[in-house]
Amino acid sequence: MIYRRSLSFVVVLLIWPAIVCGETPPLSDATQECLECHAIFHPGIVAGWEKSRHAAITPAEALQAEGLALKVSSKNIPEDLQKVAVGCAECHNLRPEAHGAGTFEHNGYDVHTVVSPDDCRTCHAVEADQYSRNVMAHAYANLVDNTVYNQLEHSILGNRTLEKGQLKTAAPDMATREEACLYCHGTALKVSGTEVRDTDAGELEFPVTEGWPNQGVGRINLDGSKGSCSACHTRHSFSIEVARKPHTCKECHVGPDVPAFKVYSASKHGNIYSSKKQEWDFKAVPWTVGEDFTAPTCATCHVSLLVNTDEEVINERTHEMKNRLSWRSFGLIYAHPQPKSPDTTIIRNKDGLPLPTDLEGGFADKYLLSPEEQAAHTQTMQATCLACHGTSWVEGHFRRYHNTIKRTNAEILTLTDMMREAWQLGFARGLDQGANPFDESVERQWSDAWLFYANNVRFAAAMAGGGDYGVFADGRYHLTQSTIDLHAWLERKKAVEALKAGKQ
Amino acid sequence: MIYRRSLSFVVVLLIWPAIVCGETPPLSDATQECLECHAIFHPGIVAGWEKSRHAAITPAEALQAEGLALKVSSKNIPEDLQKVAVGCAECHNLRPEAHGAGTFEHNGYDVHTVVSPDDCRTCHAVEADQYSRNVMAHAYANLVDNTVYNQLEHSILGNRTLEKGQLKTAAPDMATREEACLYCHGTALKVSGTEVRDTDAGELEFPVTEGWPNQGVGRINLDGSKGSCSACHTRHSFSIEVARKPHTCKECHVGPDVPAFKVYSASKHGNIYSSKKQEWDFKAVPWTVGEDFTAPTCATCHVSLLVNTDEEVINERTHEMKNRLSWRSFGLIYAHPQPKSPDTTIIRNKDGLPLPTDLEGGFADKYLLSPEEQAAHTQTMQATCLACHGTSWVEGHFRRYHNTIKRTNAEILTLTDMMREAWQLGFARGLDQGANPFDESVERQWSDAWLFYANNVRFAAAMAGGGDYGVFADGRYHLTQSTIDLHAWLERKKAVEALKAGKQ
Amino acid sequence: MIYRRSLSFVVVLLIWPAIVCGETPPLSDATQECLECHAIFHPGIVAGWEKSRHAAITPAEALQAEGLALKVSSKNIPEDLQKVAVGCAECHNLRPEAHGAGTFEHNGYDVHTVVSPDDCRTCHAVEADQYSRNVMAHAYANLVDNTVYNQLEHSILGNRTLEKGQLKTAAPDMATREEACLYCHGTALKVSGTEVRDTDAGELEFPVTEGWPNQGVGRINLDGSKGSCSACHTRHSFSIEVARKPHTCKECHVGPDVPAFKVYSASKHGNIYSSKKQEWDFKAVPWTVGEDFTAPTCATCHVSLLVNTDEEVINERTHEMKNRLSWRSFGLIYAHPQPKSPDTTIIRNKDGLPLPTDLEGGFADKYLLSPEEQAAHTQTMQATCLACHGTSWVEGHFRRYHNTIKRTNAEILTLTDMMREAWQLGFARGLDQGANPFDESVERQWSDAWLFYANNVRFAAAMAGGGDYGVFADGRYHLTQSTIDLHAWLERKKAVEALKAGKQ
Repeated sequence: MIYRRSLSFVVVLLIWPAIVCGETPPLSDATQECLECHAIFHPGIVAGWEKSRHAAITPAEALQAEGLALKVSSKNIPEDLQKVAVGCAECHNLRPEAHGAGTFEHNGYDVHTVVSPDDCRTCHAVEADQYSRNVMAHAYANLVDNTVYNQLEHSILGNRTLEKGQLKTAAPDMATREEACLYCHGTALKVSGTEVRDTDAGELEFPVTEGWPNQGVGRINLDGSKGSCSACHTRHSFSIEVARKPHTCKECHVGPDVPAFKVYSASKHGNIYSSKKQEWDFKAVPWTVGEDFTAPTCATCHVSLLVNTDEEVINERTHEMKNRLSWRSFGLIYAHPQPKSPDTTIIRNKDGLPLPTDLEGGFADKYLLSPEEQAAHTQTMQATCLACHGTSWVEGHFRRYHNTIKRTNAEILTLTDMMREAWQLGFARGLDQGANPFDESVERQWSDAWLFYANNVRFAAAMAGGGDYGVFADGRYHLTQSTIDLHAWLERKKAVEALKAGKQ
Repeated sequence: MIYRRSLSFVVVLLIWPAIVCGETPPLSDATQECLECHAIFHPGIVAGWEKSRHAAITPAEALQAEGLALKVSSKNIPEDLQKVAVGCAECHNLRPEAHGAGTFEHNGYDVHTVVSPDDCRTCHAVEADQYSRNVMAHAYANLVDNTVYNQLEHSILGNRTLEKGQLKTAAPDMATREEACLYCHGTALKVSGTEVRDTDAGELEFPVTEGWPNQGVGRINLDGSKGSCSACHTRHSFSIEVARKPHTCKECHVGPDVPAFKVYSASKHGNIYSSKKQEWDFKAVPWTVGEDFTAPTCATCHVSLLVNTDEEVINERTHEMKNRLSWRSFGLIYAHPQPKSPDTTIIRNKDGLPLPTDLEGGFADKYLLSPEEQAAHTQTMQATCLACHGTSWVEGHFRRYHNTIKRTNAEILTLTDMMREAWQLGFARGLDQGANPFDESVERQWSDAWLFYANNVRFAAAMAGGGDYGVFADGRYHLTQSTIDLHAWLERKKAVEALKAGKQ
Repeated sequence: MIYRRSLSFVVVLLIWPAIVCGETPPLSDATQECLECHAIFHPGIVAGWEKSRHAAITPAEALQAEGLALKVSSKNIPEDLQKVAVGCAECHNLRPEAHGAGTFEHNGYDVHTVVSPDDCRTCHAVEADQYSRNVMAHAYANLVDNTVYNQLEHSILGNRTLEKGQLKTAAPDMATREEACLYCHGTALKVSGTEVRDTDAGELEFPVTEGWPNQGVGRINLDGSKGSCSACHTRHSFSIEVARKPHTCKECHVGPDVPAFKVYSASKHGNIYSSKKQEWDFKAVPWTVGEDFTAPTCATCHVSLLVNTDEEVINERTHEMKNRLSWRSFGLIYAHPQPKSPDTTIIRNKDGLPLPTDLEGGFADKYLLSPEEQAAHTQTMQATCLACHGTSWVEGHFRRYHNTIKRTNAEILTLTDMMREAWQLGFARGLDQGANPFDESVERQWSDAWLFYANNVRFAAAMAGGGDYGVFADGRYHLTQSTIDLHAWLERKKAVEALKAGKQ
């Protein structure tokens, strides 16, 4: 639906200078030109930006903040950018060469649609560097370049058809992959050509970008950089408030494979957040425990710069979230120490598979944190806990969590031993038989157990997410049910085989 | 628990005139009389109403709003109603003849308990008309008068008993139906008699209304009208704020059969709503994108009158929600174009069944939107998207959504082909065998796939609800699992039959 | 992570007296000493407390409230406690002898870590007494001392290993129990020794308390008292606002075994709460229906002191929640009248088992509310309903709810009859065979039906939680599916047995 807006153009031209006056910082000429049309065509984008800190302050002013309050970490922001608000052009016209075919001529400017972490790095260099070492930045290749994960994705996303009574699984099409796994992991953007669109401003040519739209955490951008800051710093307000609230993390961490939000919202921490958040300050930098908030959100424990009421640092800001984590407790068959490198494609277990454990639960030690490194990460995390809890509370909590890691791994070992027996006996066809190990009924029963139930139990343990949740909401009840059901299936198969053998 | 309140009566009589003074509009004598007792007996109802716009303004004042701000769409509101606040009597004493046996004498007035859309029409005629063409208004008959849906309801709600080892399913009793399907679809109200109740004001006679209480969207009212405005415009504040917030829709759109709220709350849109809603204006009419809110709620995309910051209309208000929808993606075996008529009982597929598709997935074209009509509806919806997103973003989104419609329909075809084979081979008894097609184990596996999993995938696609949700939360993982499990079951049944045959 | 804070000590010493001046009440010397260190070590705890009513008012001032506004129910609060704010020492240094080995010498004071209901009783005697009669206070023994529940816990929490192809279930370890069932039910605290910790203030000795941390509702405290007020009155603000919001109850009432929060949030009541709570007064005592809130939360119906706008009592405050409940609809095989005693370990059904019903659904009448007592409890609950709903509405609602109790019990009877036949035929091993009745595949199918699905249906009925939720979200669809699936399993087992018999 396109409106005739020739008159509106004039109105906006008259209004913008008025807005620019007063307390708001000056806009660049280029940004003013953008706003003249886009305020009408995309009022939501412009209004979102107008409410942002980017519109309210220049980098030069931001640089005047002292000490821990400093939000802009780059030392060498170009002079011309420092003096104007961070508007449309300051980001979308930045580094046109770097964005290659993504850059197009638009009303006299070289513009690119997809702003990347390397654009944001202009002002936020430390955060961009940290994030590049975060496993999330590598989420695309970590999924796409792992042969075992490929098989899981293939089994989940591929359409099934019947051919002479047999199920055939087609390779998943790209649109499905983009909407499914790559929604969170990120797509690989690629310009495949150009197209002419009939706009209110006449015919204009735009690049056609495969993989767009996407805001996945490991998006491969047209400038070669990895990630999308707007995955968490939601465009176009890029609000620290939104990033610090747990609903942001929920976008990707809500399903039974990674139920962080569900467990949080059932925890004491989540209860306090839900009940009291209206009285908290989500914008303060640094973030003062007790004063600005009285219970942690996801960001508190995993990312934010925290201080006590004396402005002493409790935890440094990090966008490399592994720094506060010792165990990786979801997404794989067994919980295991965090990988050393954010590039997990390099990992090989003792059987040569790109997995951090072998099927018996042994760790691929060489690629994972050592116990000493784990202890250091745990201590970093605990510094935050200790701001509100006594030592005995914190130690008791972690003692239970580590016990749960051990216990759930043991239960999964029992399940996996049965799965391996099924493969060996020919009741199902797994990797050793050259088959996809995730595409038969019994294999899904097995993957339910580690992909969903053991995860849920561990998340509830890690986040003190409540006994009820960890027991009954896809938790311990269902984990042990999986073991019981898989065992019953195996016994029945053996009985049938014995019956057949007896007949022959 | 009944209190003695004879003294309170006097107090209220003294207080009400005081309240009436000042800025609040005059109350009718009848409403004043209602309030004298009911403020004490039902303080929650009265307090809710006191906070409403109905209590704060007369229709005459409301009619002075100009242009898009006008909330009262009727041209011929009776003079006497225009001059007083919209109080108890203005609605509950309206059109006493129309409400038939539902109208009863009460302290000298002809009162009816259940206010209907035809009562609301007195001031809100356009909305009442639109809603009467909304499929929701027809939700009662669309369920109750469809023989196939009847069988699904029967299978889900009917109590099962064992008779000589066989399961017998009783027809569901009315109280269960009212509490289950008809809670949302609406009950058919019917006055079955009268009863005398001992009240604080002495013995009084009231009608006994079967099907009450109910606020279902397709309630059959005692005046013959269909629907319940209070399903969304929650009594007794009838707040536009509440109707515009997604929690209202959640009342009926939350289970795995229609997981709109769950998908929304896991989406970027839902994240922004959850994080920023405290700063939005949910009462503004018209509703300005970017200024009043920065991310859509359910109402934004499906109902509300939207304008840009120049007060240019982005989308007209509609209470006939189909106008912005091209596909119906839930509740039936296959996704299909929206039906043309809100009365879906008239639909017949090629096999003569009252279903919008046949079992092979073919559309009952005659009763469904044509591709051209679908395109027009999509364009209407996209006008809203484009307020915050560029063309390439919006087109990319819809390309993926339409691909997902196609892919999920293809997967369900594979499942349905297996189900049909099972019926043909006598492994289960379906429609062709004169049996309920939803009451055997394997039939429920089949209905799980289309009633829950394919739906979830489509909702996640339609609403950009997140990869994690659409993959793992009753989504693609479980959809393909259904196919795998149903195939394994079919193979096992065939093997057993072959074994039996070999023995004979 | 421990900081050097010798300088900070001095700063705090200077600041605290300043805070004490002005409108805040005087602090005891002991509390001032606590704060000197703990404001730095645990800023979150101190900040939480500073925002509490305990920090803002002395008991003497609190006692000046009149009538229904009085929050402090004890008649004999010690003089010295009355004159100072309720700070650290007022609770943690209270009754040192009573806490036995939990009390330790700390900087010259006798301190205990775990504050108990008998500490809180000092000011809140009536509430402590009520709570001691609440079934929640007995949640530890009610679980741990019931031989049947033990078997359920054992089956859910015990790790399984394979021994010669057979599954063996180990007894669950204590850390797992504490994190799982006892998280909500409460742990039994016990001092097992002492340990020396190296703190900023030098080496200090602390007791080692098994079962810590825990805030379960039936925690067995070191002074022998039962429960943890902070389960709901979250430390260290102990806010009535938090306790009245439904997120508190969600901590333990969210899983499919007791889905109160989920059902609430899908109900009309939950919708209104979610949409309008920002305008309500969650701190007012008494709590005025309509004025302070316009829809109930959990606390409204189950706990709070409610008045109408004339300050007439609608319902008295109770911490013995059974007083407003007639049926116990979750956690056990059949819904049944509430037990008379909060100690449910004394219950014996006709077969001598510690269950409130027998397997045929008959009630253990002697231990349960009589129909007359049930009617009285229902009437108490309905007094709250009637504040916002007419009599016909309320009666209609309860008629459906009671019908649903009957219908779900009937469906569970059919399922249990099949389960008992399976035990009798030797297809599974139950109590009569000296086996755990919850540890085989088919037994879990059976427990799914009553532990999850029948519950969900009843909660949706009790709380008007929506047709969609009660039908499709682990509700009636899944309940009847359980019956169908269990019947199919039983038929298959019989067929196999017949086949085997035919071969012999």
